[in-house]
Amino acid sequence: MAEVDSSAIGQLETQGRAAKNAARDMAFASTDAKNRALGLIADGLINHIKEIGDANSLDMEAARASDIDEAMLDRLLLNSRRLEGMAADVRTLASLPDPVGEVFDMRTMPNGLLLGRQRVPIGLIGTIYESRPNVTIDISSLCIKSGNAVILRGGREAIHSNRALVAMVADACREAGLPDGAVQFVDNTDRSLVGHMLKMRQFIDLFIPRGGAGLIRLVLEEAAMPVVAGGIGVCHTYVDRNADLDMAVRIVYNAKVQRPTVCNALDTVLVHREAAPAFLQALAPELEGAGVEVRADERVMELLRPIYRNLTPAAQEDWGKEFLSLVAAVRVVDSLDDALEHIRKYGSGHSEAIITEDYSAATRFQREVDAACVYINASTRFTDGGQFGLGAEVGISTGKLHARGPMGLRELTTYKWIVFGSGQVRLG
Amino acid sequence: MAEVDSSAIGQLETQGRAAKNAARDMAFASTDAKNRALGLIADGLINHIKEIGDANSLDMEAARASDIDEAMLDRLLLNSRRLEGMAADVRTLASLPDPVGEVFDMRTMPNGLLLGRQRVPIGLIGTIYESRPNVTIDISSLCIKSGNAVILRGGREAIHSNRALVAMVADACREAGLPDGAVQFVDNTDRSLVGHMLKMRQFIDLFIPRGGAGLIRLVLEEAAMPVVAGGIGVCHTYVDRNADLDMAVRIVYNAKVQRPTVCNALDTVLVHREAAPAFLQALAPELEGAGVEVRADERVMELLRPIYRNLTPAAQEDWGKEFLSLVAAVRVVDSLDDALEHIRKYGSGHSEAIITEDYSAATRFQREVDAACVYINASTRFTDGGQFGLGAEVGISTGKLHARGPMGLRELTTYKWIVFGSGQVRLG
Repeated sequence: MAEVDSSAIGQLETQGRAAKNAARDMAFASTDAKNRALGLIADGLINHIKEIGDANSLDMEAARASDIDEAMLDRLLLNSRRLEGMAADVRTLASLPDPVGEVFDMRTMPNGLLLGRQRVPIGLIGTIYESRPNVTIDISSLCIKSGNAVILRGGREAIHSNRALVAMVADACREAGLPDGAVQFVDNTDRSLVGHMLKMRQFIDLFIPRGGAGLIRLVLEEAAMPVVAGGIGVCHTYVDRNADLDMAVRIVYNAKVQRPTVCNALDTVLVHREAAPAFLQALAPELEGAGVEVRADERVMELLRPIYRNLTPAAQEDWGKEFLSLVAAVRVVDSLDDALEHIRKYGSGHSEAIITEDYSAATRFQREVDAACVYINASTRFTDGGQFGLGAEVGISTGKLHARGPMGLRELTTYKWIVFGSGQVRLG
Repeated sequence: MAEVDSSAIGQLETQGRAAKNAARDMAFASTDAKNRALGLIADGLINHIKEIGDANSLDMEAARASDIDEAMLDRLLLNSRRLEGMAADVRTLASLPDPVGEVFDMRTMPNGLLLGRQRVPIGLIGTIYESRPNVTIDISSLCIKSGNAVILRGGREAIHSNRALVAMVADACREAGLPDGAVQFVDNTDRSLVGHMLKMRQFIDLFIPRGGAGLIRLVLEEAAMPVVAGGIGVCHTYVDRNADLDMAVRIVYNAKVQRPTVCNALDTVLVHREAAPAFLQALAPELEGAGVEVRADERVMELLRPIYRNLTPAAQEDWGKEFLSLVAAVRVVDSLDDALEHIRKYGSGHSEAIITEDYSAATRFQREVDAACVYINASTRFTDGGQFGLGAEVGISTGKLHARGPMGLRELTTYKWIVFGSGQVRLG
């Protein structure tokens, strides 16, 4: 890796310091001021469609010239429909309750001390993300509403779009009277700066990476501050012996097909051997119609070979793989125990489902699977802040500390203990 | 640092794997079985006073021979009074509610999905601690009650005591029917093994160091898994212009003198210049009587010189220093703003207090101080799981993520989302 330009490091540290200072005041920003900023951001997305679109065109041209794939081009695109959708999301966020200041576990102790926990912002959030420029708006608006400052480092491909979006966000914050410098954008795509950013523990309280497995691993390994990471979803749906097969087909189809490029989409179907013939018979035409490629174990190969064209034997690495596309691995298991063992071995701790009418199997699955979200008789596609009633989310945590599953506004806060005394001293 | 013996690494990894496997079953251990184990540990501390005492004598002899200081010798000592106290603490822990399984935020979504968060153990807790062998009992019993497995690495000085305690704990777990291997003790004091332990992310879910600043820094810097660290308490008490001076003297005296060797003891007194003459006049005989050395800024020097013997000018490094002894730094400030600025600059985010009768000053202090525990008119000595009604604690977190302040049973758990469906699939 090349030496980093020392003036770029100086600039990054200046931004870190400015954001840290702004974080102090952001913690006391009124809900009104924060919501005003969000309203102005939503307006800005609509009123500046032309400027943002022009900036985005520069990114799209550069991307096309560099022979990037279609999926990535699609992620990069900001058209007016998308900008309107983003504006609507920001307005929804403004309508959610402010988590800051909420007091819980308040109690009076026998000595008369009144004490409890009060929700406060975390401070300065650092984030690195890849191509999708809407993440710039998602994360900054979540940080604003939760009273945090943020330092954003987006992808090289989206640099023009991000620059335009951040300029608009900064204007909105200024006009709303929020502290200067609360939203910082690292306008430098030198990769070696990332390593430096991950060491800035003196400024950044929490790091949230958004992107592929490589980026997440880099951040987990290199960051000197706490990290909440997620996004890698290897999601299983287990069709039990006593499943309602119509329901099982509907759920598996939905989990795989409705939006295959996201982390809560199905990757592997496990099916009990007694249910396998009838279930696969019913599932095959649905998946085939949607263009799903099936990677099958031996028993599934045998059952599907006569009726499914897009079929290949599963390789070892297909178990535990996040496909993010219209591919599903399918395996027959002999028992609930085998399904649990498979999930333990190959799951990523994101979302797992059982389809069953058997009460004991359902409760045992829910109890024993160690994942952020464990479903009975529903699609794993529901793992999402909005679907869980939390509003927008900054990501889906697959870690176990601080936050698990969808990370909404509340998960962007911490708490402090507040203690009201009247002269109490400790005796023993 | 010397090469580590590869068989020692192999042994450590075997223990990590065994504990990780045990963690799976610990998560489902019944409250009855866990409480039975705690009862047996309490009995064991009393019934094995002789064996534990003999083992402790070996440590005490070795410590004396190596010219260790009195404070450390005292921390190392296990006598029957201390063992009885430890047994009583373990019985109290048994009487607390089990946090595992509690369900919260449960709600029915518009599509009929019933979902909420269920408290579950974290998994495998790793810990490194220094001389005090009672930490072995504290942490293992907290981990047992919260359904976690634990891997303990105590100090070299306490190796014989720890060995005896852990053997007794293992017997208790076996007799109570808890999974084998849930409490692992690293019976090897080679320091270079610690670095290896801190990299075992595949086994250890959370690391909790207990000890001095050097140990905490090492763990924060080297650990590959999440860390909740604490224990460094640079605690300020600010005596405001409008303080009740009798109360202020009582609280400052208590916070400094009642138990000076612990993290929630007072380090620095800040006093408003208008209150300073009368307050210091009243405080001086109390502190002098307790043998407290005062390190004073210029204005305090002037006021105390005629009436206080054990007085020295504060050096720059006395601000922000955790004394852990009968030493207090004392400074006059011109305003609440200056007090807040001092605490921002020198505090460690542990416990901070204001003494005042002024409502606005009290609320502003509580709002603006960013620390785990912020007090109005009470002694910082209350920052403690037991005093906050949480029961025993595994430490006091000065980090902002996952847990802040006293870490009791609940803070040794995480949650998973449990979702009860009836065939729901996602449409948009």
